[in-house]
Amino acid sequence: MTILLYDLVGSDMTRPFSPHCWKAAMALAHKRLDFSTVPTRFLEVPRIEGGVSNTVPVIRDGDTVTSDSFAIALYLEQAYPDRPSLFSGAGGEAHARFIERWSQLTIHPYIGAAALTALHGMQDEANAAYFRVSRETRFGRTLEEVSSARDAVLQGFRASLEPLRSMLTYQPWIGGDRPLFADYIVFGALQWARIATPYQVLDAADPIAAWFGRCLELHDGLAGRVAAAA
Amino acid sequence: MTILLYDLVGSDMTRPFSPHCWKAAMALAHKRLDFSTVPTRFLEVPRIEGGVSNTVPVIRDGDTVTSDSFAIALYLEQAYPDRPSLFSGAGGEAHARFIERWSQLTIHPYIGAAALTALHGMQDEANAAYFRVSRETRFGRTLEEVSSARDAVLQGFRASLEPLRSMLTYQPWIGGDRPLFADYIVFGALQWARIATPYQVLDAADPIAAWFGRCLELHDGLAGRVAAAA
Repeated sequence: MTILLYDLVGSDMTRPFSPHCWKAAMALAHKRLDFSTVPTRFLEVPRIEGGVSNTVPVIRDGDTVTSDSFAIALYLEQAYPDRPSLFSGAGGEAHARFIERWSQLTIHPYIGAAALTALHGMQDEANAAYFRVSRETRFGRTLEEVSSARDAVLQGFRASLEPLRSMLTYQPWIGGDRPLFADYIVFGALQWARIATPYQVLDAADPIAAWFGRCLELHDGLAGRVAAAA
Repeated sequence: MTILLYDLVGSDMTRPFSPHCWKAAMALAHKRLDFSTVPTRFLEVPRIEGGVSNTVPVIRDGDTVTSDSFAIALYLEQAYPDRPSLFSGAGGEAHARFIERWSQLTIHPYIGAAALTALHGMQDEANAAYFRVSRETRFGRTLEEVSSARDAVLQGFRASLEPLRSMLTYQPWIGGDRPLFADYIVFGALQWARIATPYQVLDAADPIAAWFGRCLELHDGLAGRVAAAA
């Protein structure tokens, strides 16, 4: 039976933008599992599967409903051990958590701010209103104030990616000679930026941009098929 | 046959201080391998095993000489597959490289600076002279100038460890429910500080300090046996 992925979208249903949903989509594709996406707007998230989660992604696989991208990857690894591994062992699983925390604390704050007005612009009227109130409450500033700081801290953001850049001098993927879920963790954050805003968070000559380009080509171009924001 | 570990020391042979040598020592102990250390001063490093490496650690295991802490861990994993794993699979091995790059680029610069005068003070006369010239050339400032900046950036350093701190809310080790080489990578950096200087790079209440304390107890207290600098 086809797995359902509740995938966050704005007014354009063909442009899912959530970093965490991209992690789940890439994990499903990595496992070579058939899945269908259920386009879901912010205001619809609390009603998914009877209110199982306040966040996306959520997947339904037969009778099993799982939320949270990392939990989904762990579920898929356990449920489909005969498919390509997302972690290549217990060490990969444990270390992926460190990489997730690094990505969440290093990449997400910058992109979440840099793409904030663009993300607002992707929403329909009701969702845009929700998004503005919830994010302005969180940041304590207007969306426009938050996003306008992005130029001043861009070089610092790029410098903060040096561990990833340095790692790429040793191996082509965070997973070594092939991508693993840890690659999708970091990829999801950068895909969020790519789909939301034409603002270039990476320098085109950055080796990280080359790695990101390779991610876009994976799984028959699943992620590259959604055009970059223009 | 007992493995030899060429281990960096200053004038006190019982206080090995190199972060990279500590990674190797912990990896050897993790594998439950007998090893003897060869106390080695900075100026002696280029003569180890006929000049095999400009850096320590170096190990000799029978006829096999290996340098570089990560290469040593990979060698031990391959040579002793029946002993406790340092990586728990190919994913752990690949992701450990990311964690090594993170530790090297996030932790080492701060500790290398904060402990610089203390490290100088641990050397005998000839090695102290070498250390001062090589480090002052590298930094373009006196050792004293470099170390004196440590207070001003201490809070920023502690904040930069947030990915590790956050990960510890999910699991007790970077290796998950048990330590792996990735734990020793980060441990080595903090042990370097602990042995060189009484300056407290971590707040005692930091969960990272608790994890570090657990590392000191591993393998019959191998690393805790060397007293902290006073």
